[in-house]
Amino acid sequence: MNPAARALVSRRMTAGSAYGEDVPEVETGRRDRLAAQLAARDIDAALVTDMVNVRYLTGFTGSNGALLVQASGAAVFATDGRYTGQAALQCPDLPITTTRRLCADLLQTAGRIGRLAVETHSLTVDAYAALSATADPGTTVVSLDRAVETLRVVKDDGEIAALQRACAISTEALQQVLAGPLKGRSEREVARDLEWRMFALGAEAIAFDTIVAGGPNSAVPHHMPTERPLARGDLLKIDFGARVDGYHADCTRTSVLGEPADWQREIHAAVRSAQQAGVDAMVAGAAVVRPDAVARQVLDEAGWLERFTTGIGHGVGLQIHEDPFVGPRHPGRLMDRTPVTMEPGIYLPGRGGVRIEDTLVVGTGTPQVLTDAPRELLVVG
Amino acid sequence: MNPAARALVSRRMTAGSAYGEDVPEVETGRRDRLAAQLAARDIDAALVTDMVNVRYLTGFTGSNGALLVQASGAAVFATDGRYTGQAALQCPDLPITTTRRLCADLLQTAGRIGRLAVETHSLTVDAYAALSATADPGTTVVSLDRAVETLRVVKDDGEIAALQRACAISTEALQQVLAGPLKGRSEREVARDLEWRMFALGAEAIAFDTIVAGGPNSAVPHHMPTERPLARGDLLKIDFGARVDGYHADCTRTSVLGEPADWQREIHAAVRSAQQAGVDAMVAGAAVVRPDAVARQVLDEAGWLERFTTGIGHGVGLQIHEDPFVGPRHPGRLMDRTPVTMEPGIYLPGRGGVRIEDTLVVGTGTPQVLTDAPRELLVVG
Repeated sequence: MNPAARALVSRRMTAGSAYGEDVPEVETGRRDRLAAQLAARDIDAALVTDMVNVRYLTGFTGSNGALLVQASGAAVFATDGRYTGQAALQCPDLPITTTRRLCADLLQTAGRIGRLAVETHSLTVDAYAALSATADPGTTVVSLDRAVETLRVVKDDGEIAALQRACAISTEALQQVLAGPLKGRSEREVARDLEWRMFALGAEAIAFDTIVAGGPNSAVPHHMPTERPLARGDLLKIDFGARVDGYHADCTRTSVLGEPADWQREIHAAVRSAQQAGVDAMVAGAAVVRPDAVARQVLDEAGWLERFTTGIGHGVGLQIHEDPFVGPRHPGRLMDRTPVTMEPGIYLPGRGGVRIEDTLVVGTGTPQVLTDAPRELLVVG
Repeated sequence: MNPAARALVSRRMTAGSAYGEDVPEVETGRRDRLAAQLAARDIDAALVTDMVNVRYLTGFTGSNGALLVQASGAAVFATDGRYTGQAALQCPDLPITTTRRLCADLLQTAGRIGRLAVETHSLTVDAYAALSATADPGTTVVSLDRAVETLRVVKDDGEIAALQRACAISTEALQQVLAGPLKGRSEREVARDLEWRMFALGAEAIAFDTIVAGGPNSAVPHHMPTERPLARGDLLKIDFGARVDGYHADCTRTSVLGEPADWQREIHAAVRSAQQAGVDAMVAGAAVVRPDAVARQVLDEAGWLERFTTGIGHGVGLQIHEDPFVGPRHPGRLMDRTPVTMEPGIYLPGRGGVRIEDTLVVGTGTPQVLTDAPRELLVVG
């Protein structure tokens, strides 16, 4: 393990208390920023029910909870009896209501609410109907839109540190696995091996279902690992990541078993160039569509654009896919301190495919690439 | 490993094709049963958008898809371009539409729909609004309620076989870990060890976040593993499971490091008796509230009922928690071939807790307990 990776990993391994180490210190500033938006939009209170958003605003990591934030900044958290102790530990700065009727009881705590915002992008139709039935008849229910997701786009130091650790663990584990031997092992075995190494290095979880795809399977963008044994001449595409303190690493590398064929070198080189161009275009202030356009242009000039059939990038954080989504139809501009992926690929059905993906943090200059492992076409065995 | 476990595990490890082994053969009968319900409820078509329900009715395991089932039994599946190949392999018996506008394009395939049912318990408010905007003005949108979840309650042979394998892997891995050594290892280390063994035995994934809770932490019902080292005198509560072919095992055992104290023996014996009584009451045709009442009565007579603060059981299958939910307020009767858990506990804050949980299949006689590992208070070291 290189010293930087060791330092990042060891920080993780020495963590101590019952829950504290699993969540970065939650700034009450996050709730204050939401409250300011509510005030600006003439909304009296927001009911946050999406569990990722609840975690972001409270630090609570359980599976059931809701948060009411008023435009004044006052906030109350509700969860059920299973989580009484955990909520007290994780949300020491919040009044906590323990109940089975999270939303209804939260609304009771707030007094009269003229305009109430709810998360219509994640609240179900049935939950919305139940909420509307319990809300005061004088309350107008509006959409919060993706206000909390938008707050989450720009990360603080603690979030970026967690992502750094997740990415360091991921790339270290990958390099251990690529050191081999690989020939004759199944995709599934390699996937499990990689996951075990991430856990051993301090991952709290696997960020998403690990993709290990050999030979023709590498042409399937979201292939699930099978019992197929890796063989000489295979392209080997591995798309994977570790999760640390709730934050998700996302990395893809493609190597080859034995001496690469010309077509393998060619498509890998095209993806490599496109990916580098895309990474270089990830600059704060640039249009979100810009890195996509730049990377596509490289693929187009190499004659491979029509074989690129997946998305080119997405934000990463408490979710593996989150705002901002990067692509040809996505509005807005890239923000400083925003972690995103850049992941062009070329997929030749029946033959093989190449994808190279990094998790990087957008800044005012050259982006900070967190998944720092070799990108060239590695010959493995 | 005992021979039965070996047989179950080996079936898994020899599986072959790219996707076929990850899903039990999907009966078109499932869609036919849904269609019959639609016809009976005077509904022309159902739009299934919950991804677990989509998987159940199609075999598709990707992350984005939707299914339109008409009362005639005709069905069309839609997914996006990432999953074209996978959908063709997993849903060979269905017409497939590749699109980004899943719901709108599915509705286009169906001609005029008078009454359309949607999954209001999982469809978001925003998705519902978008759907309503694209539906024909002459279409009345109603709730499908939990029709597919209700179909899923009674399992077929393939589903029960997958659960059996998941449970066999889980209990085998637990017994390996409990063989020790355990003293001095952290809760996290033990959790990772257990998970690695489940993967090595053929689990495709961990069914849910593994709970390993030692000493006072065992009193926290949904404790997350920490760096706390296990020490002599600790109760050690482990709640965990493997996933196989999409089906989730759920098992809890509580042991003790070194000679148990009297209070540890007492609460373990009370939970053991309550759990056995609850399991014995899991009989097809019994009211769903019955096993809960029986188990609670045992805890009550032992004087510990007020220290039981969690749910007593739930269905398991493609979800770790699914219908039927077992408890004091749950309507209906238990059905033959329904896998459920039975998991009473006693939690003494600051001291420790005991939970014993099995996954079992309800039948007409004695239920078939799938998590077949010792339930007595094991002394481990």
